[in-house]
Amino acid sequence: MDNLLWYLSGYADGEGCFCISFSKSKRHILGWEVRPSFSVSQNYDRIEILKLYKKMWGCGHIRPDRSDKTFKYEARSISDLQSKVIPHFRKYPLQSSKKHDFELFAEICDFISKGKHRTPAGFVQIAEIAFQMNSSGKRKFSLKEMMV
Amino acid sequence: MDNLLWYLSGYADGEGCFCISFSKSKRHILGWEVRPSFSVSQNYDRIEILKLYKKMWGCGHIRPDRSDKTFKYEARSISDLQSKVIPHFRKYPLQSSKKHDFELFAEICDFISKGKHRTPAGFVQIAEIAFQMNSSGKRKFSLKEMMV
Repeated sequence: MDNLLWYLSGYADGEGCFCISFSKSKRHILGWEVRPSFSVSQNYDRIEILKLYKKMWGCGHIRPDRSDKTFKYEARSISDLQSKVIPHFRKYPLQSSKKHDFELFAEICDFISKGKHRTPAGFVQIAEIAFQMNSSGKRKFSLKEMMV
Repeated sequence: MDNLLWYLSGYADGEGCFCISFSKSKRHILGWEVRPSFSVSQNYDRIEILKLYKKMWGCGHIRPDRSDKTFKYEARSISDLQSKVIPHFRKYPLQSSKKHDFELFAEICDFISKGKHRTPAGFVQIAEIAFQMNSSGKRKFSLKEMMV
C-alpha cells in the first residue's frame, strides 16, 4: 500500500502538475476565478496509472484531454486537495525541485480554504505566489493584466 | 531506502525509456550493433532525480542531451542492466503497460548477455522483439531494411 503511494509520488515528480489557473468571471467578487488543481496526463494505452491515483486517493476524475489526445487525471475540489492530495505529498515527498512548486501550491490552497481569495489583498498575494510556480508553463494573462 | 526505490519506479513509469537501438557497424559480425539502454530525461533545474538513479543503482551516467537541451541519465552496460536495472524493476515493478516493454527489454538483454546477438538467428529474434517495443517511438531503420 505504502509502496504504491511512493510510486505515485515518483510518477508525479515526472508527469504531475500543480497548477493555479485564473479565469475572468463575472460571478466572482473580484472578477477572477482562481482554480487550483493537481493533474497527471497519460496516453490511453497506459491509463492504468491515472486509475491508480483515483483509487489510492479516493478522489478526482479522469477525462480525455482534447488538446493532445491524452487522458488526464485531475483533482480540483479544494476539500480533496486539502484533505487528500496535499497530505499525500507531505507524507511521500517529491525528491526534485518540483517540491518547491508543491509548497507554493499548498500555501495557495490554504489561503483559498480560508476564503482569502475573496479579498483584494488575499487575491494579490495568491496571484503573486502562483506566478512563481511552473516557471516553464504558459499563462493566458500576465500578473500586470490581472492587477488592473 | 525501499521507499525511494519505489519512487524511482514510479518516475520511470512516466519518464523512463527501455530502448534497443540498432546502428550499422562494420566492426560487428552481422554488420549491426545492438545497444540496449535504460534512460530518463529531465531539465537541468530538476537534475536531482537523475542523480538519484545514479546513486541508488550505483551505475550509469548523466549527460547533456543536445537534441532538446535536457539532461539524460543512461545505463547502457549489459552487466549493469543485468545486475542492477533489470533486478530493480523485478523487485519494484512498473504498474502500467510499460511493464510489457520492460519484459521484452529484459528478454533481449538476456539474449545479448548470452551472445545470441552474434548469430543470425539470434539477431533476427532480437530485432523482432525490439520492434514490438515503444510502439510510439521512431526508428531509423525498418525491420525489413535490417533483414537485407
